[in-house]
Parts: sequence; structure tokens; C-alpha cells
Amino acid sequence: VTSEFDLIARLAERIGPPRGRLATGIGDDTAVTVPGGATAVSVDAFIEGVHFERSWASPRKIGRKALSAALSDLAAMGAEPGEAYVVLGVPADLDEAGCLELYEGIEAVAGETGTALAGGDVSRAPALSLALTVVGHAASPDLLVRRSGASPGDVLAVTGELGGAAAGLLLLQRPELREAAGNAAEALEARQLDPVARIDAGRLLAEAGATAMIDVSDGLSPDAGHVAARSGVALEIDSGRVPVQAGVAEVAAAAGEDPLALVLGGGEDYELLAALPAERVEAARAALQKGGTTLTAIGSVEAGDGVRLLGPNGPIDPPRGFDHLQEGGR
Amino acid sequence: VTSEFDLIARLAERIGPPRGRLATGIGDDTAVTVPGGATAVSVDAFIEGVHFERSWASPRKIGRKALSAALSDLAAMGAEPGEAYVVLGVPADLDEAGCLELYEGIEAVAGETGTALAGGDVSRAPALSLALTVVGHAASPDLLVRRSGASPGDVLAVTGELGGAAAGLLLLQRPELREAAGNAAEALEARQLDPVARIDAGRLLAEAGATAMIDVSDGLSPDAGHVAARSGVALEIDSGRVPVQAGVAEVAAAAGEDPLALVLGGGEDYELLAALPAERVEAARAALQKGGTTLTAIGSVEAGDGVRLLGPNGPIDPPRGFDHLQEGGR
Repeated sequence: VTSEFDLIARLAERIGPPRGRLATGIGDDTAVTVPGGATAVSVDAFIEGVHFERSWASPRKIGRKALSAALSDLAAMGAEPGEAYVVLGVPADLDEAGCLELYEGIEAVAGETGTALAGGDVSRAPALSLALTVVGHAASPDLLVRRSGASPGDVLAVTGELGGAAAGLLLLQRPELREAAGNAAEALEARQLDPVARIDAGRLLAEAGATAMIDVSDGLSPDAGHVAARSGVALEIDSGRVPVQAGVAEVAAAAGEDPLALVLGGGEDYELLAALPAERVEAARAALQKGGTTLTAIGSVEAGDGVRLLGPNGPIDPPRGFDHLQEGGR
Repeated sequence: VTSEFDLIARLAERIGPPRGRLATGIGDDTAVTVPGGATAVSVDAFIEGVHFERSWASPRKIGRKALSAALSDLAAMGAEPGEAYVVLGVPADLDEAGCLELYEGIEAVAGETGTALAGGDVSRAPALSLALTVVGHAASPDLLVRRSGASPGDVLAVTGELGGAAAGLLLLQRPELREAAGNAAEALEARQLDPVARIDAGRLLAEAGATAMIDVSDGLSPDAGHVAARSGVALEIDSGRVPVQAGVAEVAAAAGEDPLALVLGGGEDYELLAALPAERVEAARAALQKGGTTLTAIGSVEAGDGVRLLGPNGPIDPPRGFDHLQEGGR
């Protein structure tokens, strides 16, 4: 890196003048924005050797995933993406071209999602590390969906398909498994390296009356546990109804892993898990389908606490966590 | 660290329920706030071996300085502190007690400044690293003071005294210099390790009609350069009028450094440099004095560009940067 000032100046030039809610962007002591009636803010760390390996992904992919994973938290609130701020720690062996390529990945996802890059900080660091701050907007706090509103009788539904990011991680760690995945290998790896935040689906679910929502970043079972705890309810999930990405079963079998560990315990699919009043589910499903996103009912909200998983022959234990495959957990 | 979830749960418990602008705090996908008419956001990296050394400062002091340095950017806009978000990277040799002590330092500064700790992320990392996001508020964007509004004829003024943080850094790096500092040594080291953001002074300067403002984090001369560039003006600084902290001259002499390098080129004093219409300076000075903060006129805004430094016998060159003393620059 030439110098912090030079790099920031080059980035500011690329990003252009502030617009939309952003009144002052990069180049002052702070960014200045004109917010709506409610602001949603999330911060996420993304560190080499813990959350990703540079041997698996180009700087561009690393940048893309960092922002997508951060925006997924806005999706889980049903918020409109507003601004993103990037703290970048640059190791000695990443040159300026690599830094710019990483920012290009961030910028691409920002452009695809209508997010303004509004500020950041650049520093040397012992490993490539990012901290992403994302700010979302809504007209009022009541329009944002917390984890805490699920009620007994609500239906539990999930967007898209699960298990793909975990299977993709296995393929990256053990390339000899790619044969078992066949044609699905590329899509599974892409699911791990370049996930998509379900921003439109999150806003549609909020509009459809979702009572609680979370993104599946830690894994379906642990994330359901967060909703159960915050809502003071039990969540019952029929594991047979959970949509599974193509190739997940094959990769799990070849790896000697329980496929349910990938589907229920593997994180980073960045799908949304929502509780909805039963009478709202069909309308929500139809609304999401217009944008090409599936919504599948996988269980129900009950009185009690914790997560109850049903297998083909009755209750099953939570699968062994998938964290053991990841150097540092998520 | 026991686990990310455990540590976050313990922190959320300590911080208590959300209040003020904060509608939803730690424990959901995002924090939710009810903002005012304008929001000011800044992010800052704070990395071991680059910005601080653990051998110099306790985890509590590291936490204090990280938040104070971040809040200084809100001070420089004249914003009201709102919320802070902490991304913490924990190395293998920092135990949970150390992490909690670091958060205690952050919490202490949050309490002193009326800042709500609204969220964060915790991860393993190869070195102790923090990324702080601070969010400030104002009734409208026009009330926030950018770097860009200085006009020829304005007076240039600085709060407090400069050079202390750089002299304190020299004392920490070369303890044999402490003798030269005498009674001032402790205050100089405290200036480096536990700076105070000039939040009240920033708001008073904004109310008094400051046309441009910046915090002195990189050094008076380079920070004046940022204001000059953004405002499209020249800034003239009379180096003899810049208030110098007690002991700075003695430490510089003992270290074989030019005292002006510490005063004009040393950063991290976190004082505020403001441009004000000449007729507003006295009222601003009186307002700050009530809070115990001095305001000193040190120069003027002129047509042209860049920073002109005046010594006792006319123009002087910018002092050699102070960055060479710091492993990574700021």
C-alpha cells in the first residue's frame, strides 16, 4: 500500500460524489446522512484464517462476500440498505492492486444492492481483515422485524435452500470431494464464496407481516434457537421439509458427514428464517416467488422454549455443530 | 475467550436495556435507533503493533483510547454522540478477563460521553484489533461542521495544547527520557494513552459559527492541509502562537527531535482546529472557557492553497513528519 491517504483518495475518486441519503461521503471527519424514521446498524468482522482463506478466493470475491454477509443482517430486519463503511487491515503481502480489487468486489455488491460506500479506514494489519458496518433505513422502528415477535401458532418458513455453503466449504477444504458433487460442485463453492443477501425477500417478508426474522448465518438450528430465546417460544422444525441445495447430500456422504449437520448446523447460507401468522404465509410465498425466491414452510411456533427437531421417526437431537470444520467458528 | 455467544451475552447483560435513541440494542440482527434530522458516522481501526502496544497500556486503557479517538471525529463535526459499535479481534494470548477489562474501558468512556454501546462482533484474530463505529446526531445536516467551509478572512483557532501525545509516545518508547520530562512525564504519557475527545467544545464551536473543523489526529500541519484542500483556501499558522503542552520542549530536546515536529507534526492530541469568522472568535472562546477548555487563535484563512507555517523569522518548511517514530503511521 502506498499510503493511507493515497489509497483513500483513489477510492473516494472512484466512488464519486455523495447522493441519496448521503450528504457528505468519504473525505471528512464523518459521513453525514439524512436518515428516515428508523435506522438499523450492524457490524461484522471478516478475518483471514478465521472467516476465509486467501488461497480459496480472489480479493474481489473476499470483498463481495464481506459486504453480502454484512447486508444479510439488514435483510433479516426488512431494512432498506443505505450506507456501508469499510475498515480494512492490509497485510504486508497484499499490494495496492490487491486492495483495489478487494474494493472493486465491495463496490460491485454495493452497486447491485443500492448501498452507498460512505467511509472507511485503512491500516496495516498482521492478516487481511475487514470490519464492515452497514446502515439500513425504514420509515419507522415498527416496520423492522426483530427476533423477538414470534407467537405460538405462527408458521416457520425459510427462503431458498440450505446446506450449500457448508458443502461448498467442504469442497474447498477437500478438493478430492469435488467428484462426488458432480455438476453441483461449482454452485456449491459459489454458495460458500459469493453468497447473496436476501434483501428484497426480507423487505417482502416484513411487508407480509413476519413476526420474527433472522438470517441463517450460524446454521438453521442455532439461529432458530436465537429466535426461540428472544421470542420466549419453542420452534418446531420438520427436518424433512427443509429445502436442501443440490449436491449437499452427495458431498456429505463422500465426506462421511451427516447431511443434516450441513443442512441444520451449517451456516453462511444467508437465507432468511421467518415466523409468520398462518394466514399470511401464502401471500408471502407468492410475493417472494415474483422475485424468483422460494419460501418453504418448515415448522411451527409453539409454547415452550428451545428448538425441537423432527426426523422421519420423531424427535431428533440437534446435529453435531458444523463449527468443527472451520478453524475458528463463526 | 470461551465463545463468541457467551462473551456477547455477558456484555449485553452488563450494558442493560436500550434507552434514548436506541430502540433495540445487542442481541438482534441489527441495532435499531430512532435518529434525528442528520446522522454523522465514522469508523476507525485500532490495531496492536500499528496503533498501540500492549506492553504500554492495560486493556482498560486500550479500550478507553479506542472509543475516545473514534468519538473525536464526532466532536470535529459538532455532533451529539449517539451509539458505538465495537468489532473486537481477540488474539490467543488475551483471556476473557482481558477482553472484559477492555470492554470496561470502552464502557467507561461511553458512560462519560453519553454514548450507548449498541452492538458489535467478536472474533479470533492474529493480533488484538478493534474497529470502532460511532454514530452521532444533529437536528439537521447544516448544523454539522465539515472541513470544507473555511473562507478567506476567517480566524484559525485550536483548542487546548498540542505536542503532548507525541512527547508521551517518545517517553513510552524511550523510558530514559522520563528524567528530562520531570513532573510533566505522567501527564504526557496520559495524553498519549488516554486522550479525551473534545465533544462539548466541538458542539460549542459549531454553535458559535465555526465554518470548518477537524480534529488534530494526524498532526496540526497535515490536518490543516486537509481543511485547506477541502475548503479551497490557504491556511496560515503562526507556529509561535500554537499552545504547547508542558514538558514537550524538554522531551524533544532530550530526544534530539525538533520540538516543532512534535507540536506541528505529532498527531493524536485530539484537539480541534476550527475556522471561525473573526467576529465570532471571542464568543466562542468565552463559551469554551466555561467548560474549562482554552481556545487560541493561531492563524488565519487566506486565498490560495496549502498550509503556510510562520516561524519567528518568517516562513518555515513543514517539520519532518512525526510518523517515522511510529511503526505504521496513523
